Amino acid sequence: MKSTADSVTAYQQLEALFTRLYHLAHVDAICSWDEAVKMPRGGGSARAKAVADLRVISHELLLNDSLMPLVEQAEKDVYQDPWQMANLAWMKRRLLTARSVPSRLTARLSERAMVCEQAWRQMRQDNDWQAFRPKLKETFLLAREVVEYKGQALGLSAYDAALDEFSPGLSQSIIDPIFGHLAEFLPPFLTRVRQRQAGIERAPLEGHYPVDKQYALSKALMRCIGFDFEHGRLDVSHHPFCGGVSEDVRITTRFDEKAFLSSVMAVCHETGHAMYERQLPEQWVSQPVGQALGMAMHESQSLLIEMQVCRSAEFMEVLSPLLAHHFGENEGFEPQNLYQHYCHVSPGLIRVDADEVSYPLHIILRYELERALFDGSLAVDDLAEAWDDKMQSYLGLSTTGDFRNGVMQDVHWPSGAFGYFPAYTLGAMIAAQCYQSAMRQVSGIQQGVAKGDFTPLMRWLRDNIHAKGSLLPFQALLQEVSGEALNVNYFIDHLKARYGD
Amino acid sequence: MKSTADSVTAYQQLEALFTRLYHLAHVDAICSWDEAVKMPRGGGSARAKAVADLRVISHELLLNDSLMPLVEQAEKDVYQDPWQMANLAWMKRRLLTARSVPSRLTARLSERAMVCEQAWRQMRQDNDWQAFRPKLKETFLLAREVVEYKGQALGLSAYDAALDEFSPGLSQSIIDPIFGHLAEFLPPFLTRVRQRQAGIERAPLEGHYPVDKQYALSKALMRCIGFDFEHGRLDVSHHPFCGGVSEDVRITTRFDEKAFLSSVMAVCHETGHAMYERQLPEQWVSQPVGQALGMAMHESQSLLIEMQVCRSAEFMEVLSPLLAHHFGENEGFEPQNLYQHYCHVSPGLIRVDADEVSYPLHIILRYELERALFDGSLAVDDLAEAWDDKMQSYLGLSTTGDFRNGVMQDVHWPSGAFGYFPAYTLGAMIAAQCYQSAMRQVSGIQQGVAKGDFTPLMRWLRDNIHAKGSLLPFQALLQEVSGEALNVNYFIDHLKARYGD
Repeated sequence: MKSTADSVTAYQQLEALFTRLYHLAHVDAICSWDEAVKMPRGGGSARAKAVADLRVISHELLLNDSLMPLVEQAEKDVYQDPWQMANLAWMKRRLLTARSVPSRLTARLSERAMVCEQAWRQMRQDNDWQAFRPKLKETFLLAREVVEYKGQALGLSAYDAALDEFSPGLSQSIIDPIFGHLAEFLPPFLTRVRQRQAGIERAPLEGHYPVDKQYALSKALMRCIGFDFEHGRLDVSHHPFCGGVSEDVRITTRFDEKAFLSSVMAVCHETGHAMYERQLPEQWVSQPVGQALGMAMHESQSLLIEMQVCRSAEFMEVLSPLLAHHFGENEGFEPQNLYQHYCHVSPGLIRVDADEVSYPLHIILRYELERALFDGSLAVDDLAEAWDDKMQSYLGLSTTGDFRNGVMQDVHWPSGAFGYFPAYTLGAMIAAQCYQSAMRQVSGIQQGVAKGDFTPLMRWLRDNIHAKGSLLPFQALLQEVSGEALNVNYFIDHLKARYGD
Repeated sequence: MKSTADSVTAYQQLEALFTRLYHLAHVDAICSWDEAVKMPRGGGSARAKAVADLRVISHELLLNDSLMPLVEQAEKDVYQDPWQMANLAWMKRRLLTARSVPSRLTARLSERAMVCEQAWRQMRQDNDWQAFRPKLKETFLLAREVVEYKGQALGLSAYDAALDEFSPGLSQSIIDPIFGHLAEFLPPFLTRVRQRQAGIERAPLEGHYPVDKQYALSKALMRCIGFDFEHGRLDVSHHPFCGGVSEDVRITTRFDEKAFLSSVMAVCHETGHAMYERQLPEQWVSQPVGQALGMAMHESQSLLIEMQVCRSAEFMEVLSPLLAHHFGENEGFEPQNLYQHYCHVSPGLIRVDADEVSYPLHIILRYELERALFDGSLAVDDLAEAWDDKMQSYLGLSTTGDFRNGVMQDVHWPSGAFGYFPAYTLGAMIAAQCYQSAMRQVSGIQQGVAKGDFTPLMRWLRDNIHAKGSLLPFQALLQEVSGEALNVNYFIDHLKARYGD
């Protein structure tokens, strides 16, 4: 911090610091996008060092001893402005969290997690759980130590601190009843859906779909949803993601010339993320209160667009002519046939390939294992067996001996990201609840989507969710938007409506 | 700086600081490349703020009061290692320069220069020198004030400090006699060359050259010169440039589907820059001593590849079949015809379009005007008339009333970059001198080039120039490489040989 004139308030000094952190996050985001999309392989080692140091610089900016007294001073100044108050609360949280963990421990976790993740890439290929287990154990123990410190600072249990890191406000007490309910409802429902779908014929969609045509189709879909190419890009990467910054949002997909179904929905999904980023409150975008409200909320915005809207029967009426326009006529593009493809339920071992009905069971499985790791009732050494047991009971599938497609399938744990998984399914539930509210509150939304006009929906999302940034905690936001806190029934009703009970 | 254990020497502490500055320069380079190549227009304002702040952070890291005492301490430790000694000298220079200029002045120059450059873009289009003149005057006065401070810190005159900023070690005392000599030699030589070329017929090369084929040809040329695509990229931008970092060098060009001549040489030129960056000393690359030796030296490496090698008659034997391979047979691709195109001399008003013979006169004109601005014998108010006078006397062309193609043609002055121009022509002379040395010292270089094998040349450049980084001042490097300081006669001999006297 520079020395400041008396006329600059404590709050303004803090704003200036967080604007600087936003600038560092901007260049970090662009360099990370570049790494995934453009960087030649040989540049990787230098890039990793540069970006790691950038993050150390950001972290060090939060450690200055003058900052907490500044927060206390600022708390006296801002009590009349709800945005400033919320902003200051987020600043305080960032400072508390940053200062709570010894620097040496943070550095050790990030170094060991990088080693663990690299080992995982090879050992997953080799299906070698025995060799990988001690590495994962080391990473878990360090990650747990970190969130224990954070929990102490924030007054949370270690696992709640882990959840809160990715989705502020999320906790075991919110998740437990919801996942408990879903864990009972889904397995028999899944069986019934599969029986019903067994008799349905789907016209095959194999063919040759050139990359340039898929790219043009993707851009047309993005424009239809509301993506502004003056403030963003579409590119190709190994895994689809949404990166960049609010002023320059960058999504990616991947193309398979033999199939378009998966890439089309990846584009819709990432565009949902992108619209959230793009419609954040412009005047607060450099401040913590102007950021998106954590991963569960972010995932809700991508799943609202993908699952609630773009996989709906109505939207197939929009997609069908677009496919014909870009790829030529094909009777497989008939809306009802597309719908059958997109709603086909077929449980498998791999989370990222899962359909909408079985997906939450993959998440519940991981959540229950994480919770048990954190409360000490499960050891990393016993994780593979516990995984297999749950896979049998929830999805009726066995992974015995198949660690590659079992406990070793995800990058999250090897990279130290414990507490992330619930955001996926919480997002699906928030999406269902918000979309129902939107349709109740604005009459033209569904009709708009059926004509390919997302404007009424996007305006509602902007005004009610996106432009609120992090002004409200996520449960308060849901309350304001839908009149109630998170309620699993909207999601269940959605599944029943789409998959027919 | 963190508090350090006794076992870390003062020199090591400084190395750590400069490694951090290198990391910041890395992300700056990638974001700047992205801005020119990938960024959607709407992202520009946020990007400008983020990158500007990144540079402020870098600057502030050099202002810590503990650093100069650390340098004094380190000077006692490193006297046995020439690389460490040179590194420390560069560090000291960076610290002295950074601390020499009041922060308020630096900020004011960068803000006013940005305003001036933006005004220039519009006013150049409008040919409105009267409106632009006061803005340029303001920028010049601020730029002069900045280099006056720097000159005081480094013991240089203001204009020498301006030259030194872009090409360390370059000064008026080096340039004056050389440019004086060239200014006498070139105008009559140019007249003789034009008379000789008047009778030469060139088969036209107009045609349709698709971008994807030009791109493939460009990559083939880059591979031939030695570019490693594991550590770099080729892309398209508005103006060709070389960016990125040593570990990930990124060059750009632009394609015109009706003509390939200019893009081919732009690619050769930028590849020359890229090879310098890529072959810098790997173990010193994060330190000042591992960086390239300023703009004149950098330009010498691009011009050595473009002007000395790739526009040579020998290289046309390599280029000709490459063109036929990528574009199909065409009698215009005959080597002698390509050579006539690439060596065609035709003076014009615009520097960036100038041929090799008239180019230095564009630079001498600008140098003489800058020198006069700095010594006070010329005012910005009289710049357009002075420009026109020199254009008449050096190139026999008039720019009266045509400010757009006269005094307002370059971005350098509007952006505050006074003292940059000489590097272009100094680079051309260094290139001629180095290439002669290389051919004297290694017998296979010219034969290699004629077969499209750049390996002997690149090895010589690496060992003698690139891998030296900034170990030696530029005149000492030239002395070591060629046995003498900068000598204009190599360049004049090259022109005589190619353009025939």
